[in-house]
Amino acid sequence: MVTGVRLADFALRMGRVEELLVVPGASPEVDELAQRAGVLGVPVRQVSHRVVEAISDVKTPQPVAAVVRLPEVVPLGRLRWRWLAVADGLQEPGNLGALVRTAHAAGFDAVVVLPNTADPFHPRALRGSAGSCLALPLACATPEEVCAAARVWVADPRGEVDYRQADYRPPVALVFGSEAAGARHPWPGARTVRVPLAPGVESLNVTAAAAVLMYEARRAWTA
Amino acid sequence: MVTGVRLADFALRMGRVEELLVVPGASPEVDELAQRAGVLGVPVRQVSHRVVEAISDVKTPQPVAAVVRLPEVVPLGRLRWRWLAVADGLQEPGNLGALVRTAHAAGFDAVVVLPNTADPFHPRALRGSAGSCLALPLACATPEEVCAAARVWVADPRGEVDYRQADYRPPVALVFGSEAAGARHPWPGARTVRVPLAPGVESLNVTAAAAVLMYEARRAWTA
Repeated sequence: MVTGVRLADFALRMGRVEELLVVPGASPEVDELAQRAGVLGVPVRQVSHRVVEAISDVKTPQPVAAVVRLPEVVPLGRLRWRWLAVADGLQEPGNLGALVRTAHAAGFDAVVVLPNTADPFHPRALRGSAGSCLALPLACATPEEVCAAARVWVADPRGEVDYRQADYRPPVALVFGSEAAGARHPWPGARTVRVPLAPGVESLNVTAAAAVLMYEARRAWTA
Repeated sequence: MVTGVRLADFALRMGRVEELLVVPGASPEVDELAQRAGVLGVPVRQVSHRVVEAISDVKTPQPVAAVVRLPEVVPLGRLRWRWLAVADGLQEPGNLGALVRTAHAAGFDAVVVLPNTADPFHPRALRGSAGSCLALPLACATPEEVCAAARVWVADPRGEVDYRQADYRPPVALVFGSEAAGARHPWPGARTVRVPLAPGVESLNVTAAAAVLMYEARRAWTA
């Protein structure tokens, strides 16, 4: 289930809402959403605000919730892809959501979520992704499979290659590790890439580093 | 007060710790920190874990807290700067902290924090900045002052100029608005700059957008 107008609206536009719960008359936005769901043949239930509060993980949720059909996490081999992001050990669902959102925005084809990583369908991940976890293909794969299929760059504050000098020709995969400890798996044959840091700064947060690297890769393929 | 080994360590290295509270014997890292503080002449108090819990805003804090001397937020006119980031309405302290951390990492000279913005010394801002809120100069200024002193670019998902085409020659200021509504002030004479987004994506989060833009500006001045 997702809560919030933006996320419910996004899921509705993706055709992923199975049932919409609204607090009637609570806001014009929600009424408009309910009307649109009705037109699309999605069942709309009127509930009290207490029901939405019980469903949501935030303290003061917006007066709407949706039962969504979550997409499948597919084996990587079943996807066609050229540009891949990989989450290897991100613990915080909000950070994983932000990574998926940035990958989606930068035009990546899919995100591989390793088993040591947060759940991409956790409420905070869905919110952090602004819906991208429902829209961009998510895949499972082992590091070996990824390394066999792509040029692999592991993000690392002390990486061997400056991000402006890395070769992002596809098929390419960018690997982002945990907030504290970096990539958790060995990545056979992969190289490490760094975003340069001013003196006195130890690292960027994973959202910032991923954004700089993914948009640099995007620049290479849109040049 | 700050809590956590990393932040206390950073503050100690910055010479900003006035008093260190430790739970004795709780961890070798903390004992090492206490020893280092002692060598520097910083008073070290032994406290129980309950004291640290009462001070911290997180549920299970690390066994260390520090009374830090916060830096002054100075009027912009008193600083020498060429590259400036501006926070105009960021509500979430963690996002402001991440912005300051990225600005610091990318080599910006200072961050202007407008009065409509979160407190840069809020515990979540300090944590999100990994200490950069104690290290990078923070300044106050009006939008008019910034516009009179610099080339100003306001980040906007529908901005008029692609970020790769913008002119970042100094003195330059990059303005980042609130998570939901963008820049809140009018910026007289400023132009808007966008990070391109794949179809179906409405925006990047502010940390990601700021990282892409600030590192692009950095590229221009290190080219």
